[in-house]
Amino acid sequence: MNSYATDLSTIYEAYERIKNVVHRTPVQTCRQLSRHGGADIHFKCENLQKVGAFKYRGASNVVLSLSDQQASAGVVTHSSGNHAQALALAAEQRGIPAHIVMPSNAPQVKQDAVAGYGARIILCEPTLESRETTAAAIVAETDATFIHPYNHAGIISGQATVALELFEQVSNLDVIIAPVGGGGLLSGIAIAAKAINPAIRIVGAEPAGADDAFRSKASGQLIAQTSPNTVADGLLTSLGDLTWPVVRDLVDEIVVVDDFQIISAMKLIMERAKILTEPSGAVSYAAAVKIDFESADTSVACVISGGNMNLSRISELIENCRDR
Amino acid sequence: MNSYATDLSTIYEAYERIKNVVHRTPVQTCRQLSRHGGADIHFKCENLQKVGAFKYRGASNVVLSLSDQQASAGVVTHSSGNHAQALALAAEQRGIPAHIVMPSNAPQVKQDAVAGYGARIILCEPTLESRETTAAAIVAETDATFIHPYNHAGIISGQATVALELFEQVSNLDVIIAPVGGGGLLSGIAIAAKAINPAIRIVGAEPAGADDAFRSKASGQLIAQTSPNTVADGLLTSLGDLTWPVVRDLVDEIVVVDDFQIISAMKLIMERAKILTEPSGAVSYAAAVKIDFESADTSVACVISGGNMNLSRISELIENCRDR
Repeated sequence: MNSYATDLSTIYEAYERIKNVVHRTPVQTCRQLSRHGGADIHFKCENLQKVGAFKYRGASNVVLSLSDQQASAGVVTHSSGNHAQALALAAEQRGIPAHIVMPSNAPQVKQDAVAGYGARIILCEPTLESRETTAAAIVAETDATFIHPYNHAGIISGQATVALELFEQVSNLDVIIAPVGGGGLLSGIAIAAKAINPAIRIVGAEPAGADDAFRSKASGQLIAQTSPNTVADGLLTSLGDLTWPVVRDLVDEIVVVDDFQIISAMKLIMERAKILTEPSGAVSYAAAVKIDFESADTSVACVISGGNMNLSRISELIENCRDR
Repeated sequence: MNSYATDLSTIYEAYERIKNVVHRTPVQTCRQLSRHGGADIHFKCENLQKVGAFKYRGASNVVLSLSDQQASAGVVTHSSGNHAQALALAAEQRGIPAHIVMPSNAPQVKQDAVAGYGARIILCEPTLESRETTAAAIVAETDATFIHPYNHAGIISGQATVALELFEQVSNLDVIIAPVGGGGLLSGIAIAAKAINPAIRIVGAEPAGADDAFRSKASGQLIAQTSPNTVADGLLTSLGDLTWPVVRDLVDEIVVVDDFQIISAMKLIMERAKILTEPSGAVSYAAAVKIDFESADTSVACVISGGNMNLSRISELIENCRDR
């Protein structure tokens, strides 16, 4: 038997560790969207998680797992997205320092959000190399613990708690669809769900403009994502060496959707189901629409991974969508 | 003692009549939005009501109140908005005909929504006169019952159930703020809430471009709205002879907000609280931001009256907002 970054008992430990600090997010349904998707679709609303995204699960699991000594030196990460806010809030709640390395071109609103949780922001050049060397320098300087946004066992265990809640909230679940970027959420869900019910089908939903998971799975080896280009800006990153084996072995399928399909799904989710989603959060439903399910009774969970978006950005997206 | 269109015991009857067909909508809070509003703010999410708006409460109350004989002839209304969809669904659920008179310039998406609930759509000229004469002709032809969107005792009683739920969901409520267009929602809430707790403060929130309730209350007599002009397109209508006396006597205050304040509130509600609201639904929070509450602990309910909007429309609104 293969061994992965985490397992079901570790995931249950994470669940117990974070259950009083994370929101148990609701599951919503919408008749129209089920009909349009050709299945009985359940939306797991991680847009209503603290900081507006599932990332708070993994971040709080890792921060609460630190020893007092480790914790006192604080935590570090580099991110301009939801992980940055999640780690900042988790650190604030434990009362420890958070150092967040952000590219100098990160929108002011994202910097403000992170600063609002009391984190220290360190700006760097907008390249992966600069982000990594800057973060390494902070670690050397402060002895803080570096927390990778997805390629980290504790992060994967935390994100996996989405699956445990889903099994409690939806009976007889046949399929779970989750977006895949770095794969922390998808691999966590796959490990937990397959351990509980090996017959369940786990689908990763990926934007065509950042389809490294699809290509990796097709070729049988980890292929890194270069020059990603998609509106789903939370899904630009490559799989890591902890998430890839899980995607390879336990995820049944990666379904690729293009930006037009993502934006169309986002519009439906917002206009019809009244769920506020960011483009990355709509990718799972876009994939559901593309899949030909066995029957309209097939019970499908689509994870709405986050809801952090700038409304002004919608106009651009809608315009792009119209051009097609 | 004055007598109004309805009273608390009639409202409790409406509550019992519709409780198994309407959603008991959730109340959500958001730390940031409470801070920004200077009070402990609770959002009553009628955007998550069936058909996406509180209008389904009144419509289902009236449809379920009809005798079998009345019901068999069906119902009629003229509306291009949420009341049309609400009445269409309520009629469909009882299995009776609904005739909806809509102006010929009503967006196709709204016509489709009404038709989707199995209603018969009758197009007319886009004038109030044409709407009324067309509806009257339908009544003459079919013997169906005309259901006014707000100036109707059964509609007011149905909308009032929002207040009953709020008292169950939020303890020690000090203030309820509801948007006011025709006044069905606001007057229903005022009658129910003041009967239960005379000390509660009831505030109507009104767009500056359709401020007939404010002007009526200031002058002590019903003033009709002419040439309304606001982004809050659900609040264009005048008070009616049933809603005006309640607004006059039981509503403590009408707070007027301009379109810039409405759009800013809408952005905050969507971006921060992740609640999908139409502009009319954001007016209550826009008013809350404007009010100087006694303390940050003042417990305030803001009714998010509906969430039906075209995402494409957001780009226009945001652009307008930027121009200021």
